[in-house]
Amino acid sequence: MRRKGKMNSLQDILYHFALGTGTHDFPALFGDVKFVCVGGSPSRMKAFIAYIAEELGLGSSGGDYPNICAGTDRYAMYKVGPVLSVSHGMGIPSISIMLHELIKLLYHAKCSNITIIRIGTSGGIGLEPGSVVITRQSVDATFKPQFEQVVLGKTIIRSTNLDEELAKELLQCSKEINQFNTVIGNTMCTLDFYEGQGRLDGAICLYNEEEKLQYLKEAYDSGVRNIEMESSVFAAMCNLSGVRAAVVCVTLLNRLEGDQISSSHDILVEYQQRPQKLVGYFIKKSLGKV
Amino acid sequence: MRRKGKMNSLQDILYHFALGTGTHDFPALFGDVKFVCVGGSPSRMKAFIAYIAEELGLGSSGGDYPNICAGTDRYAMYKVGPVLSVSHGMGIPSISIMLHELIKLLYHAKCSNITIIRIGTSGGIGLEPGSVVITRQSVDATFKPQFEQVVLGKTIIRSTNLDEELAKELLQCSKEINQFNTVIGNTMCTLDFYEGQGRLDGAICLYNEEEKLQYLKEAYDSGVRNIEMESSVFAAMCNLSGVRAAVVCVTLLNRLEGDQISSSHDILVEYQQRPQKLVGYFIKKSLGKV
Repeated sequence: MRRKGKMNSLQDILYHFALGTGTHDFPALFGDVKFVCVGGSPSRMKAFIAYIAEELGLGSSGGDYPNICAGTDRYAMYKVGPVLSVSHGMGIPSISIMLHELIKLLYHAKCSNITIIRIGTSGGIGLEPGSVVITRQSVDATFKPQFEQVVLGKTIIRSTNLDEELAKELLQCSKEINQFNTVIGNTMCTLDFYEGQGRLDGAICLYNEEEKLQYLKEAYDSGVRNIEMESSVFAAMCNLSGVRAAVVCVTLLNRLEGDQISSSHDILVEYQQRPQKLVGYFIKKSLGKV
Repeated sequence: MRRKGKMNSLQDILYHFALGTGTHDFPALFGDVKFVCVGGSPSRMKAFIAYIAEELGLGSSGGDYPNICAGTDRYAMYKVGPVLSVSHGMGIPSISIMLHELIKLLYHAKCSNITIIRIGTSGGIGLEPGSVVITRQSVDATFKPQFEQVVLGKTIIRSTNLDEELAKELLQCSKEINQFNTVIGNTMCTLDFYEGQGRLDGAICLYNEEEKLQYLKEAYDSGVRNIEMESSVFAAMCNLSGVRAAVVCVTLLNRLEGDQISSSHDILVEYQQRPQKLVGYFIKKSLGKV
């Protein structure tokens, strides 16, 4: 938490989680959390909690994991042992609301030594589809490692640094499991999926293929290996809050070769499991269970 | 559609809807759509389709409305007669992905004379909670009626004009149903719910109450009556695509009096039905059923 003043309300309502300090015992519910994994899709984050539960030998007999945020459909949240799994929707504003409430949740629960990892999907640049990118730096659409934010009408710039050691540890984990290509590279974070990422197949597109490819090649030359829509504010907020953080995204396609995600459902499902496998192994290893 | 070139792929995959022209007959499925209502929450958009079905005398006997986007959990989509109801998640990037794919869907389905209305929730400024705001202009966090977007790394500015006639028609509908306070006013669209809207209760807050109130009062003086997170790109994209559009949001609280949404669940549920009632009446009236 980075706050000018103390919060002075009698209770704190985390509106978009449908949780509140007046109605929920945060230390009892969340006090043992050490790893928080976040991702866009609610069903993917539910699948992740079932996977990690199995991996840690904490699987429930019925295989059922209740949604802690069942009182709302804004986000979904699941927990097993020291692992919390939370969905964040798509885009910077959506993940930023979730992170404000998540950081407050961890604070109210008196958690310490937390590691937060975003496990997501992305478009790759110059990589075989299915490759996993661990983010070195999150950069904006002009390839600068910064996040611009407007606060009280004024633009401020925040650093998007991520934990270097953690990125290296994750790369080492990928080498140990040795199942798919993983690289450390820069991740470009955009505010739009179509025009913002130079796609030619949006409803609005006022540039041509040559201009698109030139932009993507400039991105590649600056060190960008994948493009997604949440990493910059994720890095900035974790940074400001002093939380160790990483971004691990699989690439669903190579943007130098096309715009549409047209791989079969089964292949895409397998790709989306790769960040889960990598981060699952990392958590097991961190807990001395490998 | 506003495109430099023709789309040249054999089929168009609307990835985030899990629909595609190669697998779905768009004219048969959507050709009769005349009204599209969009809102953040999937469950609210499902409730809306059930409500409008009743109102139009098109209610299904079982009261069940299947999710057309059941193949994904990114968005939910429902249809009854000429009305399509689609969720868009929270924030500009999330609604922008949905709108790209929605505009392509309507184009492939050969729809014409479409009206798109966003029915949402917002924070009010200087209004009794529960008041409904019909947006005159969507303005940015510095109160300018524009939407800044980065395309191929360059910032471009788009107009956020909305249809004046449609706003007046909607206000007239509210007078006719006469159940809650409705005003036409400017809507501020921000990229963040906490710092971006001057809240004091986020995980990060580096300003004080006086600075916050000064900002909100400046917003009020410039004509802003509510704050939400999607209207600017919604207005810009509908504008560019030549679609008649309106934004109708209920205010859940008066931001001059606080930051937390602490009204009871039942009161909030009733507030959230107000834009649905207003737009439902408007659709009935447009179809000559009032």
